[in-house]
Amino acid sequence: MATIVFYSVNKTARIATRRCLTLHSKWLAGDSPLSSIHSPTPAFLPGARWFSKGCSVRFMSHGTAGRASAGRIRRGALALSGAAAVTAAAAAAGLLANANHFQSAEMATKVPQAAEETETEEEGDILERCRGFMASPVTDVRVLQERKDEMSTRMEMLIMETQADFCKALEKVDGGKFKVDQWQRKEGGGGISCVMQDGKVFEKAGVNVSVVFGHLTEEAAKQMRSRGKVLKGKDGKLPFCAMGVSSVIHPKNPHIPTVHFNYRYFEIEEEDGSKQWWFGGGTDLTPVYINKEDAFHFHNTLKEACDKHHPQYYPDFKKWCDRYFHIKHRGETRGIGGIFFDDLDSPNQEGVFQFVKSCARTVVPCYLPIVYKHLNDNFTDEEKDWQQVRRGRYVEFNLVYDRGVKFGLATPGSRIESILMSLPLTARWEYMHEPAKGTQEAEMLDVLRNPKEWV
Amino acid sequence: MATIVFYSVNKTARIATRRCLTLHSKWLAGDSPLSSIHSPTPAFLPGARWFSKGCSVRFMSHGTAGRASAGRIRRGALALSGAAAVTAAAAAAGLLANANHFQSAEMATKVPQAAEETETEEEGDILERCRGFMASPVTDVRVLQERKDEMSTRMEMLIMETQADFCKALEKVDGGKFKVDQWQRKEGGGGISCVMQDGKVFEKAGVNVSVVFGHLTEEAAKQMRSRGKVLKGKDGKLPFCAMGVSSVIHPKNPHIPTVHFNYRYFEIEEEDGSKQWWFGGGTDLTPVYINKEDAFHFHNTLKEACDKHHPQYYPDFKKWCDRYFHIKHRGETRGIGGIFFDDLDSPNQEGVFQFVKSCARTVVPCYLPIVYKHLNDNFTDEEKDWQQVRRGRYVEFNLVYDRGVKFGLATPGSRIESILMSLPLTARWEYMHEPAKGTQEAEMLDVLRNPKEWV
Repeated sequence: MATIVFYSVNKTARIATRRCLTLHSKWLAGDSPLSSIHSPTPAFLPGARWFSKGCSVRFMSHGTAGRASAGRIRRGALALSGAAAVTAAAAAAGLLANANHFQSAEMATKVPQAAEETETEEEGDILERCRGFMASPVTDVRVLQERKDEMSTRMEMLIMETQADFCKALEKVDGGKFKVDQWQRKEGGGGISCVMQDGKVFEKAGVNVSVVFGHLTEEAAKQMRSRGKVLKGKDGKLPFCAMGVSSVIHPKNPHIPTVHFNYRYFEIEEEDGSKQWWFGGGTDLTPVYINKEDAFHFHNTLKEACDKHHPQYYPDFKKWCDRYFHIKHRGETRGIGGIFFDDLDSPNQEGVFQFVKSCARTVVPCYLPIVYKHLNDNFTDEEKDWQQVRRGRYVEFNLVYDRGVKFGLATPGSRIESILMSLPLTARWEYMHEPAKGTQEAEMLDVLRNPKEWV
Repeated sequence: MATIVFYSVNKTARIATRRCLTLHSKWLAGDSPLSSIHSPTPAFLPGARWFSKGCSVRFMSHGTAGRASAGRIRRGALALSGAAAVTAAAAAAGLLANANHFQSAEMATKVPQAAEETETEEEGDILERCRGFMASPVTDVRVLQERKDEMSTRMEMLIMETQADFCKALEKVDGGKFKVDQWQRKEGGGGISCVMQDGKVFEKAGVNVSVVFGHLTEEAAKQMRSRGKVLKGKDGKLPFCAMGVSSVIHPKNPHIPTVHFNYRYFEIEEEDGSKQWWFGGGTDLTPVYINKEDAFHFHNTLKEACDKHHPQYYPDFKKWCDRYFHIKHRGETRGIGGIFFDDLDSPNQEGVFQFVKSCARTVVPCYLPIVYKHLNDNFTDEEKDWQQVRRGRYVEFNLVYDRGVKFGLATPGSRIESILMSLPLTARWEYMHEPAKGTQEAEMLDVLRNPKEWV
């Protein structure tokens, strides 16, 4: 099994970049719909559930050494497949829709206010970092350079980096190459979809980035208000900016689980020019067979990333994940979960960003060791069939329940191929399929019907 | 190609059974939620769009000779697979949900009032007819015998007969046997699901009957009111009875199309004991490749059945079908359509029943000739792949748009396996799949994007 070192601390760099926290209060260019956004909203927003309690936050550090290390496995795979002349749209529409759960959550984790002077790591030169991406960022590099300290820039760089790191780790193990499509959204923004299909290891692997902006549709605003947000638009208009990275990986071997993750950031500008912002995301695993060691590794890696920020993050977000990825009509969860959160806007923007960064950088160490471990596992036709049945359930969840997919499909002009790239290459529906008692298939079903604690 | 004779006229029998039209005004047993239902509602119900215009209706006749002929291909395949101890439910939930389209239809077909004395055919001895079914009817045979002239009995017999005729025709061509599951619904009623999986000709064939009764849920009542029905319940309760036959057949050979049909009847008892009733249904074809001869045969057979009842039925219900089976996010219809109608409650109950009977009895002659024609067609791996991609779209329609499926999945206690038996055994999602210009696949897509007139 390959061991990949991802974490390294570069104290000098951390201290040197504290200045980055001095946010610009204006966008430099005037052509953005968010051009009059001032400072981030304070920590206590209407609808915010995550608030200060007084204990200190520990931030995970991720220095330049780590980046250089990741850089070594990069392969300059920037072949753009014709820049996809799709009359693109909001694949990121999901970003607007993916957050309706919190008001019903019983979780009341309180998040500590970050210390006056938070620490962050060197994020490095924009242009240099862009060289490692799967494609040019959605936002013009010069604009990113000019606004490098703004959260929208830092998040866009993080999601581009997450996409590149994950794609390259997958290319390394598979031997195949991702097809890279850049697409634009007429109303503002665009995205980069990376898909590898019918590879050696992966049946279908999709890693999508989108950065979209414009004005909230009435439906999106209504949905947000329904979960407690007070949104006052100017002349009824609410400029927004949404961005995220999302991925679903379906391997061929039934002993290698499917993984999904999604990390996203949202900003809305209100009537008075102030803005609301929040982060959401999660990483979850969908195995075909239970392997307790894998389940422990996956959950424990997530827990360690969460624990660096708050001891309640993992237990709360683990529960939230089980509740969200629930196929109600089957009485089953989609997989063995992981973490899921939304509307996260406290203790402060920097604190949440650091947590999201920890999560995003945990994707590869969560998943790749499991892939390598089972790379050469033998499997039978029966095991392949069971995988295909589970894929059918995956399709059921994604088409019937997933809020992002539903919202995307209902949004005119959405980029359907990016929304539905989460569907497996192949799936199966057998009438009245029920595994025999005592089989490994029955063991899997039992776990899906009764979610477990893995760490 | 096998030629099957379905239509024969038995004038003596027709005349002999005119007395059947004298409906009993009460259920004989007092244990039914519909026990105080009186006569059918008059033709001009709120929400009814189908009304008298004065021209006469021609009824299709279907005598005992036809039944005897059908009987010859029966094989006594009544092996019940353990009577499925499913804690059953409303697979027929779809029946409650399948009808929200009419108010937006621009169709204004006017249906002639039937002559004072309508003609009907001999429906035969209940017990004798039951012998040919796939399983015992949901309603006790003695109750059916006692209430043999009531519409609910006549419709239950029709849907059982349609199931048996279709299953046996499919068994004959495939050589396999249907698995027959009888299931009960705790709240009242039950069903019979017949499924043949991984046969020689058919990948998955499902033919489902359900007869359910009880009280309308608040959601169902709301949905019905939203399409113009005025429903006054007693103490807020609305007893209903819903029944139907539905089927989806997915063949293995990509040159044999998928077919779907569904015929259903609904009764609701109001505060004053009177009842509202209506019929709905349709038959539609989903080929993988366009074959104009097949398309003509299928549509023309439907048109002939419709034309016996009203010249506007086929053109109006053909349009309705194209509109209903529309995969909005793809900008494609699911297949090449057929007919679809709902809320049909005029010119009178007998007239609509005769029309529905014509449609139900047209299923086999619509479809089986096409199956026989392509039974031994060769196909390539590429054609099989294209079939699988089309199956993926079928799944998308059924899970995202089909009202019956959506309603069923959202109804607690529904029999999920019966609702989802419409899904294919296997399906495929390829990222950015677009057939090359000039190919047969592109020709198919073009038809799905621009529905055609076939007769």
